[in-house]
Amino acid sequence: MNWIVKQIGVIHTPYKKLSNVPIQGVLKPEVTGILEVFPEYEDGLKDIEGFSHIILLYYFHLAEKVELQRKPFLDDKEHGIFSIRAPNRPNPIGFSVVRLLRKEQNKLYISEIDMLDGTPLIDIKPYVTKLDIRIDAIDGWLKNKL
Amino acid sequence: MNWIVKQIGVIHTPYKKLSNVPIQGVLKPEVTGILEVFPEYEDGLKDIEGFSHIILLYYFHLAEKVELQRKPFLDDKEHGIFSIRAPNRPNPIGFSVVRLLRKEQNKLYISEIDMLDGTPLIDIKPYVTKLDIRIDAIDGWLKNKL
Repeated sequence: MNWIVKQIGVIHTPYKKLSNVPIQGVLKPEVTGILEVFPEYEDGLKDIEGFSHIILLYYFHLAEKVELQRKPFLDDKEHGIFSIRAPNRPNPIGFSVVRLLRKEQNKLYISEIDMLDGTPLIDIKPYVTKLDIRIDAIDGWLKNKL
Repeated sequence: MNWIVKQIGVIHTPYKKLSNVPIQGVLKPEVTGILEVFPEYEDGLKDIEGFSHIILLYYFHLAEKVELQRKPFLDDKEHGIFSIRAPNRPNPIGFSVVRLLRKEQNKLYISEIDMLDGTPLIDIKPYVTKLDIRIDAIDGWLKNKL
C-alpha cells in the first residue's frame, strides 16, 4: 500500500551543504535552527513549550536512489539501510531528537540539530523520557564509533 | 509538497483492539510481536541484530480525521497534536522504540511494543544511545503522568 505524506513546515538551519552537517548535532549545542510550522498547523503546537526535547520527522528531500546496503560515514563496511541512519531508504524519512529552546507563534527555536537548511518537516512529537530513553541499549556496529 | 510513502512490512502483535494497547509498551516486556519485512527489503536488515533496540516508523492505518488539539488518554485537558502521541495527526505516522529480541531472515522478533496487530511498517532505524538518549529531558504536561 501507499499513502501520501504532506509537508507541514520547513526546518531552517545554518547547514547549507551535506558536508557541513554534523553526525552528532548534540555535540554542537551552540548551533541553532528554526522550525517554521505552516500557519494552518499552529494550533497543534499548544503546550509543546513544556517539553525540553522534541522528535522531528522530516523528508530527506535530496535523497536519490534507494540503497538497501551501504557504507556509512562511520565505518568502512557495508551495513543494511535499516542498521544505519542514511537518507537513501525505501521511505526517505529522517528522524532526530532536538532540544526545544522556545516557541514564538508558529516558530520553534531548536538546537542539537543535524538537518540541512530547507528540509521539509513532516511531524513533531514530544520526546517522553519514560518511552524514549532506553538506558541499557546496545549500539551494534556503531558501538565506540560515535 | 506531497510525497508517497510505501508499506515495507507489517507488524504482528497480540493487540487486536485499540483498547488493549498499553500506553507504555516498555512496562509489558512479556508481550512479543513480529516485524515481518517484505522479502524485497530483507537485505536492508544486515547487521541490525547487533542493536538491542530499534526505532519503528509505521502508518496509523485506522486514524481518521486530523485533530490539531485533543484530550489525550492521560489528561483531561486539550493539548496540541504535536504535544501528544495520538494517531490523528496531519501525517498519521507513528513512532516507537522497541526491543529487538532476534532476527530470522526477514522477521524481527520484538518486545516492548504498543502497536495494533496488522500495523503497516514504513521504516526501521537503529536506536543509537549517543543520539537518542537525552537523559536531562523534561516531559512537559506528561510529567508524573506516566
